[in-house]
Amino acid sequence: MSSATAIAHPNIALVKYWGKRDAALNLPAVGSISITLDTLATTTSVQFDSDLDRDTLSLDGQSSETSLGRVSACLDLLRARAGVDTRAAVSTSNNFPTGAGLASSASGFAALVTAADAALSLDLPPQTRSILARQGSGSAARSIFGGYVEMHLGKASDGSDCFAEPLLDAPDWPMTVTVAVVSKTSKKVGSTEGMELTRHTSPYYDAWVAGQSADLDEARSAIEARDFDKLAEISEHSCLKMHALAAAARPGLVYLQGPTLEAMHRVRALRASGCGVFFTIDAGPQLKAISLPEHRGQVTSALADIDGVVEILQSGLGEGARVV
Amino acid sequence: MSSATAIAHPNIALVKYWGKRDAALNLPAVGSISITLDTLATTTSVQFDSDLDRDTLSLDGQSSETSLGRVSACLDLLRARAGVDTRAAVSTSNNFPTGAGLASSASGFAALVTAADAALSLDLPPQTRSILARQGSGSAARSIFGGYVEMHLGKASDGSDCFAEPLLDAPDWPMTVTVAVVSKTSKKVGSTEGMELTRHTSPYYDAWVAGQSADLDEARSAIEARDFDKLAEISEHSCLKMHALAAAARPGLVYLQGPTLEAMHRVRALRASGCGVFFTIDAGPQLKAISLPEHRGQVTSALADIDGVVEILQSGLGEGARVV
Repeated sequence: MSSATAIAHPNIALVKYWGKRDAALNLPAVGSISITLDTLATTTSVQFDSDLDRDTLSLDGQSSETSLGRVSACLDLLRARAGVDTRAAVSTSNNFPTGAGLASSASGFAALVTAADAALSLDLPPQTRSILARQGSGSAARSIFGGYVEMHLGKASDGSDCFAEPLLDAPDWPMTVTVAVVSKTSKKVGSTEGMELTRHTSPYYDAWVAGQSADLDEARSAIEARDFDKLAEISEHSCLKMHALAAAARPGLVYLQGPTLEAMHRVRALRASGCGVFFTIDAGPQLKAISLPEHRGQVTSALADIDGVVEILQSGLGEGARVV
Repeated sequence: MSSATAIAHPNIALVKYWGKRDAALNLPAVGSISITLDTLATTTSVQFDSDLDRDTLSLDGQSSETSLGRVSACLDLLRARAGVDTRAAVSTSNNFPTGAGLASSASGFAALVTAADAALSLDLPPQTRSILARQGSGSAARSIFGGYVEMHLGKASDGSDCFAEPLLDAPDWPMTVTVAVVSKTSKKVGSTEGMELTRHTSPYYDAWVAGQSADLDEARSAIEARDFDKLAEISEHSCLKMHALAAAARPGLVYLQGPTLEAMHRVRALRASGCGVFFTIDAGPQLKAISLPEHRGQVTSALADIDGVVEILQSGLGEGARVV
């Protein structure tokens, strides 16, 4: 028996990831840039036990069969590297709502790979863990690292150059993330399904893929220069462009709800009035307001005031996945 | 002195118009298909009077200088055809909110051209009035006709083949339009300005233009076959695609507000449950629900119930612009 526990944080893409070029290997059609949070966290324990005849998964204290297949497939990749076939008991818990656009699969697979790596004493470098986490969930590759992170598109057909790497550490440019939680129910159309529908039916898909490289350049240089306004503009553009891409699918995917849109207009009005804040939204109804820490109070009151915003979560930027 | 009064109705595009290929002649980049309403109306009187030294415009009882330039320019086209230079007093009134995505410029210029044509005894055929109305406002070309109307893109650089024509009369396929009014204030970014920003900055613009012909074919054949579900699907796709196109501009144009989006989700849920209804939304926050007349009650209660919907307007399909 060998076991380890790891913690990982969700990340929020500023230059968005949407679309896969290879669904089996989970290779993205576009690169992306994200920030890793701190207060929101997934804690995962993996215990390899030769007495087990199958993997088991406990999610927030409840046995979960729906996610077990993906978890087992991810553990298989690590078992293959260790040359073992031992089954594992996985226990994972989130301190935030699961499956509602808060990137629980990102922190989940980053923590899983990191815990399993330690339990099997593989001691894989972060880049390799990033590749393995990506095969569990595309955005999980980024949660291996902290602060500002870029996910590379890569060129290799086997995905060997498709990993994330850090751009800038969290303390070097502090930021506050205020999440306006609109709904805690899981989304109707999951990301993978939504991405595939978009790739096959949205007339904007080719233009989306073609434009990503310029958006990544713009965001990377904004981060290098610590240029908040520039990062705000390219991030909101990427977010709106991603939701636009999905809305143009058939049938159209509309992840936003009424209060999400009210929150978006509120954030735009705040920035127009000089407040250092911008929005981003993933494949769910929650809005994430990214602000300079000194504007956090103003942002919180503006968002908490919206009908339909049921909870406000707050986070700074944090570290990558690590054993605890 | 010669005068005439005309009435015209707003129209709602089902296959959307967005983008101009020639801003000066107001030539659209894409064709469109619309329905003309009945209860919502603009009534316009034009009185040519040799005692006037300039055109005057009264809008809903108030002198309006902001719209006078466009109105005068439109009257100039008719004066040129009549070989006169007499100035006119124009008095126009809408029985619905002006400039808030309810197509007041469409009914306005259709009524203006029709009244001026009669006052000048030009007796121009509807197709010519459609061309003249288009130069005032792109969507006005469609309000010359009633029922289901197609606006042709045309090929000529002078716009001589860029006019609307009727596809099907209103009584041949009755429909109810229920407008959920979310805001009565005028929109911040007008259609013309929004279209130009979109054309110059949205990465999705080429794909939008390229896809329009197939959407028009699909909607036209749905109308010919009186196939409600098919018309519903292509109309919602065209609407989402247009708003997606504009949201991807820089900065992104987001015409929808929170209650608009709630209403959209409500309409989608209604149709999923078997109700014959679909939504469309123009460059403003109002949502228009198009339904089979027998489902009108169900649609009205679902929309009236939404927080932020301040008024419900209802209309059937009506006639084209006419002298009264």
